[in-house]
Amino acid sequence: MSPSLRVTVWNEFRHEKKNPDVAALYPSGIHEAVAAPLRALPGTQVRTAWLDQPEHGLGGDTLEQTDVLLWWGHGAHAEVSDAVVERVKQRVLAGMGLIVLHSGHYSKIFKALMGTTCSLKWRVATDKERLWNVAPAHPITQGIGDHFEIPAEEMYGEPFGIPDPDELIFISWFSGGEVFRSGATWRRGHGKIFYFRPGHETFPAYHQAEVQRVIANATLWARPTVNIPDVCPNAPALEILPAA
Amino acid sequence: MSPSLRVTVWNEFRHEKKNPDVAALYPSGIHEAVAAPLRALPGTQVRTAWLDQPEHGLGGDTLEQTDVLLWWGHGAHAEVSDAVVERVKQRVLAGMGLIVLHSGHYSKIFKALMGTTCSLKWRVATDKERLWNVAPAHPITQGIGDHFEIPAEEMYGEPFGIPDPDELIFISWFSGGEVFRSGATWRRGHGKIFYFRPGHETFPAYHQAEVQRVIANATLWARPTVNIPDVCPNAPALEILPAA
Amino acid sequence: MSPSLRVTVWNEFRHEKKNPDVAALYPSGIHEAVAAPLRALPGTQVRTAWLDQPEHGLGGDTLEQTDVLLWWGHGAHAEVSDAVVERVKQRVLAGMGLIVLHSGHYSKIFKALMGTTCSLKWRVATDKERLWNVAPAHPITQGIGDHFEIPAEEMYGEPFGIPDPDELIFISWFSGGEVFRSGATWRRGHGKIFYFRPGHETFPAYHQAEVQRVIANATLWARPTVNIPDVCPNAPALEILPAA
Amino acid sequence: MSPSLRVTVWNEFRHEKKNPDVAALYPSGIHEAVAAPLRALPGTQVRTAWLDQPEHGLGGDTLEQTDVLLWWGHGAHAEVSDAVVERVKQRVLAGMGLIVLHSGHYSKIFKALMGTTCSLKWRVATDKERLWNVAPAHPITQGIGDHFEIPAEEMYGEPFGIPDPDELIFISWFSGGEVFRSGATWRRGHGKIFYFRPGHETFPAYHQAEVQRVIANATLWARPTVNIPDVCPNAPALEILPAA
Repeated sequence: MSPSLRVTVWNEFRHEKKNPDVAALYPSGIHEAVAAPLRALPGTQVRTAWLDQPEHGLGGDTLEQTDVLLWWGHGAHAEVSDAVVERVKQRVLAGMGLIVLHSGHYSKIFKALMGTTCSLKWRVATDKERLWNVAPAHPITQGIGDHFEIPAEEMYGEPFGIPDPDELIFISWFSGGEVFRSGATWRRGHGKIFYFRPGHETFPAYHQAEVQRVIANATLWARPTVNIPDVCPNAPALEILPAA
Repeated sequence: MSPSLRVTVWNEFRHEKKNPDVAALYPSGIHEAVAAPLRALPGTQVRTAWLDQPEHGLGGDTLEQTDVLLWWGHGAHAEVSDAVVERVKQRVLAGMGLIVLHSGHYSKIFKALMGTTCSLKWRVATDKERLWNVAPAHPITQGIGDHFEIPAEEMYGEPFGIPDPDELIFISWFSGGEVFRSGATWRRGHGKIFYFRPGHETFPAYHQAEVQRVIANATLWARPTVNIPDVCPNAPALEILPAA
Repeated sequence: MSPSLRVTVWNEFRHEKKNPDVAALYPSGIHEAVAAPLRALPGTQVRTAWLDQPEHGLGGDTLEQTDVLLWWGHGAHAEVSDAVVERVKQRVLAGMGLIVLHSGHYSKIFKALMGTTCSLKWRVATDKERLWNVAPAHPITQGIGDHFEIPAEEMYGEPFGIPDPDELIFISWFSGGEVFRSGATWRRGHGKIFYFRPGHETFPAYHQAEVQRVIANATLWARPTVNIPDVCPNAPALEILPAA
Repeated sequence: MSPSLRVTVWNEFRHEKKNPDVAALYPSGIHEAVAAPLRALPGTQVRTAWLDQPEHGLGGDTLEQTDVLLWWGHGAHAEVSDAVVERVKQRVLAGMGLIVLHSGHYSKIFKALMGTTCSLKWRVATDKERLWNVAPAHPITQGIGDHFEIPAEEMYGEPFGIPDPDELIFISWFSGGEVFRSGATWRRGHGKIFYFRPGHETFPAYHQAEVQRVIANATLWARPTVNIPDVCPNAPALEILPAA
């Protein structure tokens, strides 16, 4: 039986190899921590891919065989090849779902789809983050409740250089005094995009149940309805035209 | 006295040199036809620039000295240098207004700011186009009335591969049976963008009063409120953080 | 086994009793023509209700037991009681889906949820209507294709006095020269709303396969994720407040 | 010389008469505190009106002679007559600007224009409020900077039962741990609406410079471009229709 949902989790996978603190939190890599709860979803096939693989692990028919792609990157955005970014972009515009995590706000693929700076304020400290659910009826927030807290996280603050979201899902409160649109969706072409803020590599956010639940909900929400490649057709008239 | 509004009209300026029919319609180039009514606006300084100039006429401090940029391109989008496109994009995100005309839907700059295919249906025939004003209170439609007609134009049809506009301004009816979102606005970063459909090079749309009025209105509407370059600052806490 | 989707189709049900032409087209009432294809959906329970029933057929726990409500009204909007309208509105805001058909644009419930005039241009003549699908990836347009035609319909034209839709689904082309946003969605509170234009009582639109398909798709799309009644709670602080 | 901008500031004006603490803060009424900075704008005529006046001070041609209406109400929303609310609503839909302040979120006029519950969390305590500017290029935020603080205010928290704003302007951080969309705009009909959160009657927010600046900016931003009364016209065909 073929899986009903084919997921690929992409990770830069560099911090885990260089920083023992990160390796201690994510011994198999952030991608495995993100992938594990998705593997528990019924009917789901989950693959992983990372930067240092050939074609960043996204060659062959991997993208065509992916319904939803999750993306975590941070220090090596510039090393992602423009050709791969362009192929991911075309797949999103054709229908593939894309979930961009945390510092992925500065990835080439997110910036290419948004068209904006995607800049923000930031601070690595000991902030508490409280994510308020501003879309209680949205599929992404089911089971989450009114709000949830992450005991320690990097701070991201407004203004966030994004186009107005189609749907604002979470707004974060930080103990240091800032706010942030920490969950938001966009439709681009035929694909759905969700940006979700938590997940600095030196904190264990991806081991937290609420974060896992949001990512699982979003993965199900982002699955494609269609796969429509780009065309720009010359179209004959459907009615009789006036004489020239 | 310095002008209150500094406008640059950019044109590919190739069709006029190769196609005598286009040259007959626009003997000084499409840019001059677009620029002339803007020169009549009080307090406005209007420059022109085109593809075959050094840096496409957009070098030096031209972009920094431009409040609103208008863009017409068609057959040579690929010849526009990526470096110039990136500088125009950064200026829009910092606050400059951008008005994209007709086949500019496929320009590098429009596609980069939209993040989508910007594809559409099309037909060069003898269509009548009727533009319906769906935003009668918008500054761009003042003086236009309920609708206006262009006797002969290239047809553009839906689906149009754009992100949902912030404001939908015009919807076109074509005699051949199609419809099109022919006027739409987006905020991207700190800049305002307006796409306006009319203007195929073999038709005299830019000599028509309503088209000129819309472009003049849009130019005034798109003027910047700010000039804020991109930053992504590390920010100290405003409140006392919890202990680590 | 309880149904997974409980649908109520509401109809004014007056024209069918007064106008033999309408009765010939819809001998069991427009509600039965709308309901029939929905009854064929698996797991769906479909009820009907109409104006001249006690509480317009929406008393008791009917609304609480309704997941998606469809609404057709035309000549007797003013006879719908404000109390029933208010109860329907609260149910939509709590999560119930609402599909408003054709002249329902002027129903009390649609106007109450939109907050605007909901006015439009109109003409009862022999127009052909062609609905262009501008959201090919949306659940509501699956199976519909690029466009579809209704051979004869009442014309509705822009400007349409609605708030900007969250999603624009169809734009209609009319042979008489107008355009119209003929399919559009809004989130209001926790409920989803879809407005769909076709369905003048003197034309057989609800017997047409594409119209039925759109309504079935929309009914499935509009089903609730939650049922959250309105509250405005006094909330204790989650952090220690500064001293007064 | 006639004024270029005619403003009416409406206040419930009850707390000031009953609660000495409120009277001490706003000895001439909240309306006078709100109106005073607007009177300093060049070319502006500012009137005030309140609940206990005949027709709540909004009779005769007051509304027709008002370009922008500001609204503060709290404990007596139910005493505002439905007829006056309907007239205000029609004026907004025709083009008048409306600025709704603080507890006006629960006014009849705001709820009627939004179509939603407009509910929220709240707490009267000793919260600090920090308003983050998420729209630095918007006319409403000019001169405000990155953020500003109100030392003591009532808390309003998410979820806020509003339709998605057309533009999100401010997000508030509260010391007690909540966030709130504290500045937001909507277009409804031909009018512009701005909701601005600060202003509980027991705190001096309307004496604070940043709050005054935002309200002045919003008043200028909200001025009408048109005055178009509601019509729903029968429209003759613009093209030759197919035979019946």
